[in-house]
Amino acid sequence: MNPAGGLPRGGTGRAGRPTLAVVGATGVVGTVLLGLLSERADVWGEIRLVASERSAGRKLTVRGEQVEVLALAEDVFDGADVALFAVPGEVAAHWAPAAVSRGAVAVDGSAAFRMDPDVPLVVPEVNARAARVRPRGIVAGPCCTTLTMIVALGALHAEWCLEELSVASYQAVSASGRCGVDTLREQLAAVAGTEAGTQPGDLRRTVGDTGPYPAPIALNVVPFAGSFAGDGWTTEELAVRGESRKVLGLPRLRVSATCVRVPVVTTHSAAVRARFENEVTAEKAHEILAGAPGVVVCDDPAAGEFPTPADAVGTDPAWVGRIRRSLDDPQGLEFFVCGDNLRKGAALNTVQIGELIAAELREGRPRLP
Amino acid sequence: MNPAGGLPRGGTGRAGRPTLAVVGATGVVGTVLLGLLSERADVWGEIRLVASERSAGRKLTVRGEQVEVLALAEDVFDGADVALFAVPGEVAAHWAPAAVSRGAVAVDGSAAFRMDPDVPLVVPEVNARAARVRPRGIVAGPCCTTLTMIVALGALHAEWCLEELSVASYQAVSASGRCGVDTLREQLAAVAGTEAGTQPGDLRRTVGDTGPYPAPIALNVVPFAGSFAGDGWTTEELAVRGESRKVLGLPRLRVSATCVRVPVVTTHSAAVRARFENEVTAEKAHEILAGAPGVVVCDDPAAGEFPTPADAVGTDPAWVGRIRRSLDDPQGLEFFVCGDNLRKGAALNTVQIGELIAAELREGRPRLP
Ligand SMILES: NC(=O)c1ccc[n+]([C@@H]2O[C@H](COP(=O)([O-])OP(=O)(O)OC[C@H]3O[C@@H](n4cnc5c(N)ncnc54)[C@H](OP(=O)(O)O)[C@@H]3O)[C@@H](O)[C@H]2O)c1
Ligand SMILES: NC(=O)c1ccc[n+]([C@@H]2O[C@H](COP(=O)([O-])OP(=O)(O)OC[C@H]3O[C@@H](n4cnc5c(N)ncnc54)[C@H](OP(=O)(O)O)[C@@H]3O)[C@@H](O)[C@H]2O)c1
Repeated sequence: MNPAGGLPRGGTGRAGRPTLAVVGATGVVGTVLLGLLSERADVWGEIRLVASERSAGRKLTVRGEQVEVLALAEDVFDGADVALFAVPGEVAAHWAPAAVSRGAVAVDGSAAFRMDPDVPLVVPEVNARAARVRPRGIVAGPCCTTLTMIVALGALHAEWCLEELSVASYQAVSASGRCGVDTLREQLAAVAGTEAGTQPGDLRRTVGDTGPYPAPIALNVVPFAGSFAGDGWTTEELAVRGESRKVLGLPRLRVSATCVRVPVVTTHSAAVRARFENEVTAEKAHEILAGAPGVVVCDDPAAGEFPTPADAVGTDPAWVGRIRRSLDDPQGLEFFVCGDNLRKGAALNTVQIGELIAAELREGRPRLP
Repeated sequence: MNPAGGLPRGGTGRAGRPTLAVVGATGVVGTVLLGLLSERADVWGEIRLVASERSAGRKLTVRGEQVEVLALAEDVFDGADVALFAVPGEVAAHWAPAAVSRGAVAVDGSAAFRMDPDVPLVVPEVNARAARVRPRGIVAGPCCTTLTMIVALGALHAEWCLEELSVASYQAVSASGRCGVDTLREQLAAVAGTEAGTQPGDLRRTVGDTGPYPAPIALNVVPFAGSFAGDGWTTEELAVRGESRKVLGLPRLRVSATCVRVPVVTTHSAAVRARFENEVTAEKAHEILAGAPGVVVCDDPAAGEFPTPADAVGTDPAWVGRIRRSLDDPQGLEFFVCGDNLRKGAALNTVQIGELIAAELREGRPRLP
């Protein structure tokens, strides 16, 4: 039996607390991860920072201390209880199992294991218990687009039972890593002070290189995220469908998604229409969401109150507003939600899962059937 | 009987062609309107340009000729056969009936008459015949958000019968007139070269004045367009519902809309999910849309082909791509559509309606029952 799936080995780090490895500590998500580890209640013993050979020897600050970055290798996981992965999918695909084989529980934020039936896909506010059953010793987190809306949806589903979901996203460039942010900033500098965006093709000429995107992203919106998955769909749209089903435990949930990149640096938004098995009211939805952990209701449109990325960026919760019952369907609810794609959309969810594992190790809780 | 609703008086302008008044000729929409009148097959006799007193005496070019702008007054409509209105709603509300009382047919692009049961709401590609029955002598065009998608939807509806519509919009700032464009350009200049958009509230501090919008529009998206209409809805969202029903002749069509402003200068986009009474296929949808007047299909996502505002701006048609059948509903079709909000979304639709009226006058076609 895989030790990571079995009884806890107990913390081996300082003060008896679990040892943590952070793999991808130098990346966009990794940087936010170190910030969160420094801000949050400290449950960890030793924290090891890991990245590629390119970064080995660099010093990064976590919990106010300078820590040297190690190059990724099998032995960085020796004695580690938990390993958080914030690296490209192909790196995680190889190294998460390697961490498990050295005795750590691996928590992965990449796409590598999300749809693996032997890997739980966890959003702690929604399905924390799922993290306890991990046949491969790995726990995955959903993509940032799913994470933007799933905490609010989970709370509403618990009350009314979700049966259909229609989502249009407004996705920020930092979800493409540093090159996404650099591309938007460079294009903004190129268009500022020009008349670009008013004649066919003039924006393409003005911005030149489109970086990781198939079209200009400054002064534009691009209805294509991820890669092409066949039958007209993108991988990102299929991810929203598959992951929502898996996290909510609704394998036949009807889902439509259109994923669109917008010129926002950080914080994804989504226009959501949800249909439930039961009749809904906007008042009750307010009440449910106001009481849901990880959700903030920001909804007084008459007073100009609704969430926008500019206000949600840098914060942990999902900001929900524009809550209203569908005019032509008493079981339909519509809302707009914003969430920081680097925090809850990536680093925060990974850290929260890590903390669940740490608590499990601490409590010596036996593995669930 | 109102003469504008009755038999044609015949053209009174040069070469026996109808006389046209363009009211609001100096505005954002009016400027595009003059361009279209200059480009299109010329059906008009005299063209009079009208705006507020502020602009009286200015000279504008139309059909290659310099024409002096007249201040809006009753007598500018004397002898006019058709008057196109591109002015704020409250100005149209007073002056379109005034034009009718002087014998002109009024075509209005504002919100003033769209939902008036005695005013047809016309999109020539979809319901041209409706323009012939105009008890008040006035014909209205829908708002730019409805116009973005309705031509494509009308073609699909004719084949499969629409029963439900879910729309999320990505609306450009030029729909707010010149002040929307100026606000976005000023905010872009303020954020260029800064790190704004990465910390809570920093964007609000960097951009300062938010102009006509309730939140920053550079590096942001704003889920609020129009004004607050009660029960959680905005006027723009209710307009999309009411106008789609009226244009398609489906008074009980189920519609959900979320209208969101994005930092794009010109060209609205919409992520559309349409459910029909009949089963659909993506192949047949391609065929229908490729043959529909006013629609261009741009849909090969594997090759990076899909519409974006940067490519649709300055062009007449609705650009449709990302066409796919819903994965969980054989009657559901999803697509993404981009259309220039100043052309088909405003000026072009108004001109097209004007041309319908001109043809009716020319043919001396009797009024329909
Ligand atoms: N950005 C988001 O909003 C978001 C949301 C959800 C999930 N994710 C996922 O999170 C992961 C990280 O994304 P990111 O945006 O932070 O990317 P990033 O900025 O490009 O950072 C990548 C990190 O992975 C490390 N790395 C790359 N190749 C490596 C290798 N061969 N061996 C060891 N380390 C390697 C890099 O180290 P060096 O600095 O040494 O190269 C860096 O620390 C990705 O799987 C992404 O899909 C991102
Ligand atoms: N922009 C769009 O995408 C869009 C789409 C669909 C519909 N519309 C509608 O089209 C109309 C015009 O919009 P716009 O964006 O072109 O606005 P705009 O740029 O502000 O132009 C307004 C026009 O109306 C004239 N005007 C204003 N008050 C007047 C008055 N009291 N008497 C006579 N003329 C007056 C102005 O003349 P001066 O220059 O002399 O002030 C100007 O020509 C609005 O009803 C708008 O809702 C716009």
